[in-house]
Amino acid sequence: MEEMPPFESLLALTAQSVEDLLRRLLDERVREGEIVRPERLLSAMKHGVLNGGKRLRPFLVMESAALFDAQGTAALRVAAALECVHCYSLIHDDLPAMDDDDLRRGQPTVHRAFDEATAILAGDSLLTYAFDIIADTETELPATTRAELVLRLARAAGVGGMAGGQALDLMAARQRPDEAGIVQLQAMKTGALIRFACEAGAIVGGAGPNDRERLSAFGAAIGLAFQLADDLLDLTASSEAMGKATGKDAAAGKATLAALHGEAWSRNQLAGLVAQAEELLEPYEDKAAVLKQAARFVAERNY
Amino acid sequence: MEEMPPFESLLALTAQSVEDLLRRLLDERVREGEIVRPERLLSAMKHGVLNGGKRLRPFLVMESAALFDAQGTAALRVAAALECVHCYSLIHDDLPAMDDDDLRRGQPTVHRAFDEATAILAGDSLLTYAFDIIADTETELPATTRAELVLRLARAAGVGGMAGGQALDLMAARQRPDEAGIVQLQAMKTGALIRFACEAGAIVGGAGPNDRERLSAFGAAIGLAFQLADDLLDLTASSEAMGKATGKDAAAGKATLAALHGEAWSRNQLAGLVAQAEELLEPYEDKAAVLKQAARFVAERNY
Repeated sequence: MEEMPPFESLLALTAQSVEDLLRRLLDERVREGEIVRPERLLSAMKHGVLNGGKRLRPFLVMESAALFDAQGTAALRVAAALECVHCYSLIHDDLPAMDDDDLRRGQPTVHRAFDEATAILAGDSLLTYAFDIIADTETELPATTRAELVLRLARAAGVGGMAGGQALDLMAARQRPDEAGIVQLQAMKTGALIRFACEAGAIVGGAGPNDRERLSAFGAAIGLAFQLADDLLDLTASSEAMGKATGKDAAAGKATLAALHGEAWSRNQLAGLVAQAEELLEPYEDKAAVLKQAARFVAERNY
Repeated sequence: MEEMPPFESLLALTAQSVEDLLRRLLDERVREGEIVRPERLLSAMKHGVLNGGKRLRPFLVMESAALFDAQGTAALRVAAALECVHCYSLIHDDLPAMDDDDLRRGQPTVHRAFDEATAILAGDSLLTYAFDIIADTETELPATTRAELVLRLARAAGVGGMAGGQALDLMAARQRPDEAGIVQLQAMKTGALIRFACEAGAIVGGAGPNDRERLSAFGAAIGLAFQLADDLLDLTASSEAMGKATGKDAAAGKATLAALHGEAWSRNQLAGLVAQAEELLEPYEDKAAVLKQAARFVAERNY
């Protein structure tokens, strides 16, 4: 880690904490003396969630919570829960009936490493487990806060959020949405969870409605930036650098804003989103330095 | 409804209330001014959840809650949430990669009526929506109770419950579990949600630990009875009467207790489970009359 730039080191540190917690939680063999977790299903869950991801969403939860001086353990559990939801969505999106991907971060996808049925169940189980983690009293937050986080996560992940966005994405190849349609699709498919990550930090930190709204708007801005950067990478980067197939959007006939407007427009747009994100964080002054770096990282990442 | 036996009429009344609530919730187009629910995904969710099921699990929530004089609206929302989880599991279990069923209650399964990707997402969305419904403040229960219900439902549905049981079931054809293995599998696959239904009623009703334990044990007993009755039906009933394929257990090489021990043993066992369930309800005297009928219905049903 010594040779990474400072921001990437911070990101890697949080990623390590999240992986450690998830590994510990999934390895808890017995709780309340009766839980049996079938070995193969548990292995598939681990394959899908302990996969060396950047853990950007958890990082956003942690750093947003830190703005409001939240204690770290509760934020870390919420961060881990969110990562379970993110990884469940990757497992299901990779299935043959969906995007049919064989590789994810350079490793076989869950349905390739195990089988389709197990991949479906591993995704289901990770999604379910996310709500288990948040609702548990081990997440040392008031019950109103835990219930609020469950509600917001469910809305961000469900038919009106990520899952709905994936449904729109599946139809996009045939229906060719216009620019507004693409923006809507992306706000749901990838934006909703990133936005939740930032708002969740504020909720964990007991922030009032204005701060929650502000962090939510920050999340929306970097969610847009994240997707635009992703589409640019799909357009320009090699499969080797990404550890997964690239150029798939165009091959699948899926329109993206990057493809629609080209690289120069996209880079300009990204700069604007970063400026907007940074401005939203002004009230928090120096405390928000890392979150501002996160906004730039999201827009400028090349992997 | 006039010509049904009294218990079936009660069951049908609750089923109607649950369907009405689910239809109303799924048709709420916009909440907080921003939620877009893709039409096709929403239709698939409705196909999977508004399907004329018996709504046994919701009924158990409602009747268990009534033992403790719980107000009906909160119990009904929890009941509807549980039905979302049950129906999500049916949608995913029916997929080609799992049981590969074309019919469910006499209708095309979701992946036959729509497509596989949509069926996966419809299941995911119903599962997610269940936690939305419970955590929402519209479920007029203290936040501690809502959080507790989320936790218990997640445990009942997840890797240590229903999803884990389905994973064990998928392996059962090859691994041929012994009798203890079959009991374990069934306690997870179908038992966990039925047990949760009864315990959830007690939680909604604010019951103390002893009553919760008692209702949970009652749920475990009728969960066993439910599965045994189901296996007997698979062994003996026609596909026409069931509205789905029968004889599939044997064809798939899956051992069941009914197949292992035969019909006479099974009927005797069922009578014992009903007696056990009724005994657990003794402290509630006349108030538990309907729940006792439910236990008999579960054991004796022929569809």
